[in-house]
Amino acid sequence: MKKRIPVGVLAGTGAVGQRFVQLLADHPWFEVVAVTGSKRTAGRHYGECVNWVIPGDPPPAVADLIVQDTQPDLDVPVVFSALPSKQARELEPVFAKAGYAVVTNASAYRMAEDVPLLIPEINPDHTQLINNQQANRDWSGFIVASPNCSTTSAVLPMKVFQDAFGLEAAIMTTMQAISGAGYPGVASLTILDNVVPHISGEDEKLEMEPRKLLGSVNQNNVHLADIRLSAQANRVPVLDGHIASVSVKLSRPAEPAEAIEALENWQPPAICSQLPTSPKRPLIYRHEVDRPQPRLDRDTENGLAWTVGKVRECGVLDLRYISITHNTLRGAASGSILNAELLVVQGCIKM
Amino acid sequence: MKKRIPVGVLAGTGAVGQRFVQLLADHPWFEVVAVTGSKRTAGRHYGECVNWVIPGDPPPAVADLIVQDTQPDLDVPVVFSALPSKQARELEPVFAKAGYAVVTNASAYRMAEDVPLLIPEINPDHTQLINNQQANRDWSGFIVASPNCSTTSAVLPMKVFQDAFGLEAAIMTTMQAISGAGYPGVASLTILDNVVPHISGEDEKLEMEPRKLLGSVNQNNVHLADIRLSAQANRVPVLDGHIASVSVKLSRPAEPAEAIEALENWQPPAICSQLPTSPKRPLIYRHEVDRPQPRLDRDTENGLAWTVGKVRECGVLDLRYISITHNTLRGAASGSILNAELLVVQGCIKM
Amino acid sequence: MKKRIPVGVLAGTGAVGQRFVQLLADHPWFEVVAVTGSKRTAGRHYGECVNWVIPGDPPPAVADLIVQDTQPDLDVPVVFSALPSKQARELEPVFAKAGYAVVTNASAYRMAEDVPLLIPEINPDHTQLINNQQANRDWSGFIVASPNCSTTSAVLPMKVFQDAFGLEAAIMTTMQAISGAGYPGVASLTILDNVVPHISGEDEKLEMEPRKLLGSVNQNNVHLADIRLSAQANRVPVLDGHIASVSVKLSRPAEPAEAIEALENWQPPAICSQLPTSPKRPLIYRHEVDRPQPRLDRDTENGLAWTVGKVRECGVLDLRYISITHNTLRGAASGSILNAELLVVQGCIKM
Amino acid sequence: MKKRIPVGVLAGTGAVGQRFVQLLADHPWFEVVAVTGSKRTAGRHYGECVNWVIPGDPPPAVADLIVQDTQPDLDVPVVFSALPSKQARELEPVFAKAGYAVVTNASAYRMAEDVPLLIPEINPDHTQLINNQQANRDWSGFIVASPNCSTTSAVLPMKVFQDAFGLEAAIMTTMQAISGAGYPGVASLTILDNVVPHISGEDEKLEMEPRKLLGSVNQNNVHLADIRLSAQANRVPVLDGHIASVSVKLSRPAEPAEAIEALENWQPPAICSQLPTSPKRPLIYRHEVDRPQPRLDRDTENGLAWTVGKVRECGVLDLRYISITHNTLRGAASGSILNAELLVVQGCIKM
Repeated sequence: MKKRIPVGVLAGTGAVGQRFVQLLADHPWFEVVAVTGSKRTAGRHYGECVNWVIPGDPPPAVADLIVQDTQPDLDVPVVFSALPSKQARELEPVFAKAGYAVVTNASAYRMAEDVPLLIPEINPDHTQLINNQQANRDWSGFIVASPNCSTTSAVLPMKVFQDAFGLEAAIMTTMQAISGAGYPGVASLTILDNVVPHISGEDEKLEMEPRKLLGSVNQNNVHLADIRLSAQANRVPVLDGHIASVSVKLSRPAEPAEAIEALENWQPPAICSQLPTSPKRPLIYRHEVDRPQPRLDRDTENGLAWTVGKVRECGVLDLRYISITHNTLRGAASGSILNAELLVVQGCIKM
Repeated sequence: MKKRIPVGVLAGTGAVGQRFVQLLADHPWFEVVAVTGSKRTAGRHYGECVNWVIPGDPPPAVADLIVQDTQPDLDVPVVFSALPSKQARELEPVFAKAGYAVVTNASAYRMAEDVPLLIPEINPDHTQLINNQQANRDWSGFIVASPNCSTTSAVLPMKVFQDAFGLEAAIMTTMQAISGAGYPGVASLTILDNVVPHISGEDEKLEMEPRKLLGSVNQNNVHLADIRLSAQANRVPVLDGHIASVSVKLSRPAEPAEAIEALENWQPPAICSQLPTSPKRPLIYRHEVDRPQPRLDRDTENGLAWTVGKVRECGVLDLRYISITHNTLRGAASGSILNAELLVVQGCIKM
Repeated sequence: MKKRIPVGVLAGTGAVGQRFVQLLADHPWFEVVAVTGSKRTAGRHYGECVNWVIPGDPPPAVADLIVQDTQPDLDVPVVFSALPSKQARELEPVFAKAGYAVVTNASAYRMAEDVPLLIPEINPDHTQLINNQQANRDWSGFIVASPNCSTTSAVLPMKVFQDAFGLEAAIMTTMQAISGAGYPGVASLTILDNVVPHISGEDEKLEMEPRKLLGSVNQNNVHLADIRLSAQANRVPVLDGHIASVSVKLSRPAEPAEAIEALENWQPPAICSQLPTSPKRPLIYRHEVDRPQPRLDRDTENGLAWTVGKVRECGVLDLRYISITHNTLRGAASGSILNAELLVVQGCIKM
Repeated sequence: MKKRIPVGVLAGTGAVGQRFVQLLADHPWFEVVAVTGSKRTAGRHYGECVNWVIPGDPPPAVADLIVQDTQPDLDVPVVFSALPSKQARELEPVFAKAGYAVVTNASAYRMAEDVPLLIPEINPDHTQLINNQQANRDWSGFIVASPNCSTTSAVLPMKVFQDAFGLEAAIMTTMQAISGAGYPGVASLTILDNVVPHISGEDEKLEMEPRKLLGSVNQNNVHLADIRLSAQANRVPVLDGHIASVSVKLSRPAEPAEAIEALENWQPPAICSQLPTSPKRPLIYRHEVDRPQPRLDRDTENGLAWTVGKVRECGVLDLRYISITHNTLRGAASGSILNAELLVVQGCIKM
């Protein structure tokens, strides 16, 4: 594989966009050759107009690019979208119609019936919705979405329990990092020495997205999984790493030991082994009573692992657990890149 | 009331002990005339050997006291105990046997059948257990305990719902302040930019103590309330203020509006109005979507209020809510002082 | 004194404006009867449009006020200005010309030759510049300014040393709280687990304002004190309280013990005793090796004290010290209120 | 180079010891085959008794080692010492006498006349003191020390300025990370929302160690550089990365531009290029007004770089600057490993 697929990053100057740019710098299959931005930045060199908020510096090759308007005249077949939700709603269909593969992290089309809401480890078969999507909408391109970062943190153990025991209900309380709000995002005066029990729209996403991720695809439609969900999202003074504290009701009650065994024995779908950035161990179960912790566990497997712990009996439902993921890596940019890799392997994106 | 009741503070040099000393400095009914400490501090002036970790300075009258051994030879009828659990287990009975009223914040005897676990706003009648306690154990004094600070944060809305609708189950996730661990307590390297999903023994307390607080006393025995409980306690980088995120199952399902009305109309037992430090509004319901927050709400009513918010439907059980209290005030020292005031009004402590 | 002076707060909905509103709620001499705001808020009830970012709630009397445009048609003789610098530059002269006493916290006119830059404990005589200011500018009102909050934290020990030993130079490094940047101010992603060695314009203010505060007024002109100054301002993850780490060169070298004695014996000008919110002990010297600390010392004397410590030999200049003040109280709103009180006592504002 | 040099880590279970273990896991020249610990841990498997406080897990090869007593019966020629100062004072000479090369991070012998205080980029020639040390003390082994982590952060720009312009004096204020205090180190109740202007012994080290590092070695004696130093060390709520805010007096005054040029053109001694973990760019000058920052810059060059910025005129001395380094990497474990590599290249440690 000599030549990399040229890709663009929509809203590449924002916090999530920067993560895409950083992570794709040495990617074996993709090469960033276009970056779009706002009116303030369009026409200027990326390296000069970006307010780089993550450690390190912009990769030199991208720093030299001229930021473009977010219009479908980029000379690439694939775009990664870090657009804010409102712009995504308007612009992503424009790109999809114009033939681009739009791999998005935005929430705008996550729950659209014909848009795959995708985590390769969980539902790689959902990409079959793309055919339907293109037919329905008369698009030559398509949109594939990643779930919300808090959904991501909670959902993999649900998948494992669904497969092993059946899953009927889950009650979630999350503790979410400030980087999930982008930049400038949460004011320091708001969050230092504090917890804010509200993130706009987050409870609703947590109560809906897992049903699609854990649903089935049949005749090109998604059937949402029949799982009752309840969520309370909280912002905590942590830089990166979302924590989900979850109680689940199973179809077939299981002992904690059985559930831990299911987690430890779980294997991702075989296709994941073909994705170049796929983590070796996507799910790590820790037996220490005080793990997982966001600062100690968020970077495991380059920030692509779920770290799970504290599986034990729930006095009200069946089991409790704690799960964490890195919200801007697994839960955002890296997750979308993994989705794009899956689309390459499945032939939806051509090398 | 001209003369104040002389009191002692057991383990008065520790973090909770300092709170007792500070809060009692201008108390209308109690006057600290004795402070006990460890071998390191006994025999020295309090003001000189205390490592004062809260804002301000030790009250001058206490600063001049000589720290004593924790032995029942203090010339006071009442002692406030800030002893660590293990010492409390050994020493509190010694004081009770010797005739002292032991008002404790320690966990050692909280679940003992004949020891009142007391919050004046919730179960002031539980003090009738004292008779039984003295008879059972052949004590001339007695022990009265405050609940764990995380239990306190979660429990008042439970009481309101129990009275209004009946309460069958509660699933709790707490986010607890570092001051709950005392001093030095949690290492900064452990908690900065982090959350720790474990506090030793806390889940168990959260799953048991509310059943006693919400239980009934009959013929001098406590009948634990028949409520299923499930808890996950977490430590967060917040100085003061514990948050409980709770889902409840009611006997008679209620709409959120009905539940909010119950909270807003709730009145503490009449006897509370006779306690000098009793808050005017012990329960404050906030309608903002992002409240309560520990930093903004913990100090309300001198740190003695419960601030509750976010009552809404739970997709799995019946209702969700968020409740916060100040863990070292309402949840520890101030709560115990309120207990002592109740004991005075009820005649268990003589003026 | 039966009737309070009606006052207005310019930009009363911002973070500093909120402090004015809160602090003036129970003021013996002043009563807030007018609040101005931006176009977004003008015409609405203060209590409804303010995004209250400090603990507690807006005082009911002010919550009921209708926010007005920032125009000189307020029915009050005195306005406290919390305007941003750019608006202050334009609007404060309009108010002064229209006859208002403008007591400002903004930087716009601090260094104007005929505007007093005022701290009652340091240079109460500088108000004599008002006559000149009114004559020069043909104003019936006037402007009196408070210094920058970081200047305030550093300057009182300089004053004491200037009086006792003569002061030739000072090298300052500050560690400043996030509340100094207002709301939303510093992004949490910027400052959590971090220090930012830059606050726009702050080094320049620190290197200039102390020279005016410590200067003399003669024939209605200010003579800047001849002191060489060098400053590095840093933002640290602290909510409130600015720290200045200072090395000074004296005209007459002094031993640390002598300098500490000067600090401990220092008395504010006699007129300060007539100001109702004047702290009893404006300067507190702490002998502990690890004090002052912002969290432990910022609230001393209702946030109006300077807490100073660690006076010792400087191996390069003469002496080092650490000084802290509460930046939004002593260094902003409370400081300006104290200035207004001084103007009342001096007859510049009529009761 | 087929075989790696077997090494031991003294006090390998502590926070600094863990860094040594982690960093040496894949070292091309050294291999950890022995770890010592306290009585509590000796005799147990490292992986089982260590309370691992840094991200990731103990390297498997070391996890399987049995922790040994800290006695000179380890079967290695080289030991890295992470001993606490008091134990280092007693035990390091025992190891040196017994023939070990003791590469230490402890403070005990840093200022001993015949012990090299070493940073390869600054004074690699100081290792010639080893001969004298062995002769003086009748040792077959030797001790080589790293400076204090705060000294390290401040000193490289001093070296550059000393060489370019001559250096007469420096006034330093540091802002130091909590990891510098080890584990458990600083209590979270002490440092959250706070700054502590005191670190025991640190001011003294900052005022002495740079004089040795910048001194000259002549006839096997160190001549301390004749530089006046003044320091104030502060603890700030930052995980890793020490900041030094420094004003310097030069022998020959220089413009900021000239000083920046000196920093940017500075090259480490040629021998550094032979050290396998030597950073490509040990000194990085950043031109942004708000850099360096600990969180953004501490990990540059694997945590081995000095990042410097804000060189500008000092209104009192000549120039100011800000410098940061990673305190547990450059300022501790990685710095010592670099010292050991230098000793290999110089032949003091034999491959």
